[in-house]
Amino acid sequence: MANFAGKNVIVGQSGGPTAVINSSLAGVYQTAKELEAKKVYGMKYGIEGLLNSQVVDLGSVLQSHMDIELLKRTPSSYLGSCRYKLPSMEEKPEVYEKLFAILEKLEIGACFYIGGNDSMDTINKLSAWGAKINSPIRFIGVPKTIDNDLELTDHTPGFGSAAKYIATILKEIIRDSTVYDLRSVTVVEIMGRNAGWLTGAACLAKGDDCDGADMILLPEVALDPEDFLKKVDELQKHKSSVIVAVSEGVKLADGRYVCELVSEAKIDAFGHKAALSGTGRYLADLISSRIGCKARAIEFSTLQRCAAHVASRTDITEAYQAGGAAVKAAFDGQTGKMAAFKRASEIPYQCHVEMVDVCDVANKEKPVPRSWITEDGYNVTDEFRAYVRPLIQAELTPIYIDGTPRHICLK
Amino acid sequence: MANFAGKNVIVGQSGGPTAVINSSLAGVYQTAKELEAKKVYGMKYGIEGLLNSQVVDLGSVLQSHMDIELLKRTPSSYLGSCRYKLPSMEEKPEVYEKLFAILEKLEIGACFYIGGNDSMDTINKLSAWGAKINSPIRFIGVPKTIDNDLELTDHTPGFGSAAKYIATILKEIIRDSTVYDLRSVTVVEIMGRNAGWLTGAACLAKGDDCDGADMILLPEVALDPEDFLKKVDELQKHKSSVIVAVSEGVKLADGRYVCELVSEAKIDAFGHKAALSGTGRYLADLISSRIGCKARAIEFSTLQRCAAHVASRTDITEAYQAGGAAVKAAFDGQTGKMAAFKRASEIPYQCHVEMVDVCDVANKEKPVPRSWITEDGYNVTDEFRAYVRPLIQAELTPIYIDGTPRHICLK
Repeated sequence: MANFAGKNVIVGQSGGPTAVINSSLAGVYQTAKELEAKKVYGMKYGIEGLLNSQVVDLGSVLQSHMDIELLKRTPSSYLGSCRYKLPSMEEKPEVYEKLFAILEKLEIGACFYIGGNDSMDTINKLSAWGAKINSPIRFIGVPKTIDNDLELTDHTPGFGSAAKYIATILKEIIRDSTVYDLRSVTVVEIMGRNAGWLTGAACLAKGDDCDGADMILLPEVALDPEDFLKKVDELQKHKSSVIVAVSEGVKLADGRYVCELVSEAKIDAFGHKAALSGTGRYLADLISSRIGCKARAIEFSTLQRCAAHVASRTDITEAYQAGGAAVKAAFDGQTGKMAAFKRASEIPYQCHVEMVDVCDVANKEKPVPRSWITEDGYNVTDEFRAYVRPLIQAELTPIYIDGTPRHICLK
Repeated sequence: MANFAGKNVIVGQSGGPTAVINSSLAGVYQTAKELEAKKVYGMKYGIEGLLNSQVVDLGSVLQSHMDIELLKRTPSSYLGSCRYKLPSMEEKPEVYEKLFAILEKLEIGACFYIGGNDSMDTINKLSAWGAKINSPIRFIGVPKTIDNDLELTDHTPGFGSAAKYIATILKEIIRDSTVYDLRSVTVVEIMGRNAGWLTGAACLAKGDDCDGADMILLPEVALDPEDFLKKVDELQKHKSSVIVAVSEGVKLADGRYVCELVSEAKIDAFGHKAALSGTGRYLADLISSRIGCKARAIEFSTLQRCAAHVASRTDITEAYQAGGAAVKAAFDGQTGKMAAFKRASEIPYQCHVEMVDVCDVANKEKPVPRSWITEDGYNVTDEFRAYVRPLIQAELTPIYIDGTPRHICLK
């Protein structure tokens, strides 16, 4: 690490936020400090902000251990985020020249980017440009996405907390759904356009004290609405309150999203075609119209990615470790890598962080394996449950001040 | 209390559930046991279930102190609920004869009903019939509603926890809303068709670490969409991410609900007129269509009444006390009453329970006073904030088992 002396590091956050993306930031920051980086800069609004030289010296804003504790408990991206996709270096070399000039001016030795597969594309391109110009700057990605769809990692930070939130509120909704002595169907719509990991996490509501979801519909399996209705009708013969968890991204056999059926029929109040949404609403309307029982739809919405008040401590800890391991790897001379989780043992659950080539992760998506979905396509298997259960274990209590969880914000 | 020897009591839950309605049940159950009631019965599915003799001996299902702790932490109505409205005694005396025959067969000395203003109507009618036939059975109501719209009580159990949930997730959503360096408006839709108490609780998100909601729209003030748009536009000149909290029940000056404007324009995918909903969606569409910036709508949905995992400990404790005080009053010979909160002191916050005549509460609604809403109608005042802040203080940690909060359920 001698060749790192006197250098600064920089870290950015990108893409949709999560409940634990700031814990990875804390991991990067504290580890860089412990490994004696000079300054730790944060990019405001990701790489897009960096292009405008929007940076902050994190040492000037994170001043105490309490600040770090709050950072671990604050959802969403402390530094701000962007959805900017770097152009290819052949197409626009000037963007890379500008970025590297900014990094060199800041005397950066290592650059960390916390994000999903688009962000790994950014790290991949920056490290490729760095190799091309023989830059000594190291580039390492830190995974983050509630969607859990990154390749080469057992799971992604952010997923466990989203899964814990989904399981927790689904249990509460199931209690709420059973109060009246009436036939009813509750359809809950869960995020995840292309991969069903989050929707599958609905299986975690099931336990000694809760029947859980009766059907779990993932985007990996095409939905046949008639067969679905038949199944709901069957379920209602034995159980008056039926619970269906559905991914927003469920498709029909012809490839259309179920939510497209809604937007074909609906326009907003101003005559515009409504935005894609409403898979749950569609299915609830279908059920009440065809089966004739009470059916309601509940969208879990954006809380899935920002409900830090019920985050998984396992997730918070691992997010921190991923950030820390990325710094260690960079200081050891690695570049073009992503911190990835490897499950060393299932019972007891043990995971460690290793480095994988970021080029093998960038722009790819990992769906739920078909073998982890039941044959009829209406639920996940015990293997899925065993995979996800460890990721929601334990809690990190919010620091409640005057009745609400305290956060830390960049002014 | 000598005249109570050898008698049983019965308790029911009615109307929409809350996060703490079971804490009131725990208060009734434990206090009745301590005051040496013989048996404590629960009505399954409220008075409607009682008419079908659906009762449970609570002593047979609540067997340990741990069960009581779980009951306090389990949202929704443990006993089940109903929305049945008792007919008038002139119209259908046979219903009262049947109910009293069931109560007498069960050797009931006192009957408790936990619910909102409709449930207080039930207690009112039962106690009137009891007086008419000289029945010795006492009838006492225990207040419950997230809407906080009951007369003669400082506030209602259930409201504080719903307010704490709203403040907590609004803070998280505000963090989520500020990640991109973009102009945006987030409209959150909050429950409460006729009274704005819950929507007003959005004011609690504001603090040292959070700007809070920029506008709070209550049903007590008619909305002028053009003036609203002007105000949003003004706000955006100083603040790129604007947050609007709106009650589902906001109306126009002509008395129409804002959400009716949506349903006039929308039909569901099956050609039916859509259910009333979408005030937030309507305003978000209005903003994006007229101001041209990104606008999204988030419905807080049913979680407002069942998010026990972030319940207020003040609320849980008071809900328990209301149940206990109701039992004490009945054992002291009172009937036709409701347990009500009286705020004895503002600083420090102190409340005690007293009995009020249930006939003065039944079927009435208490709106937010106009003087607690700012003159322009777009926010609540400091008085409102000071009133509601004590109600969300402190937490009762869920008992997490295997990653999710444990509940207790009646099989």
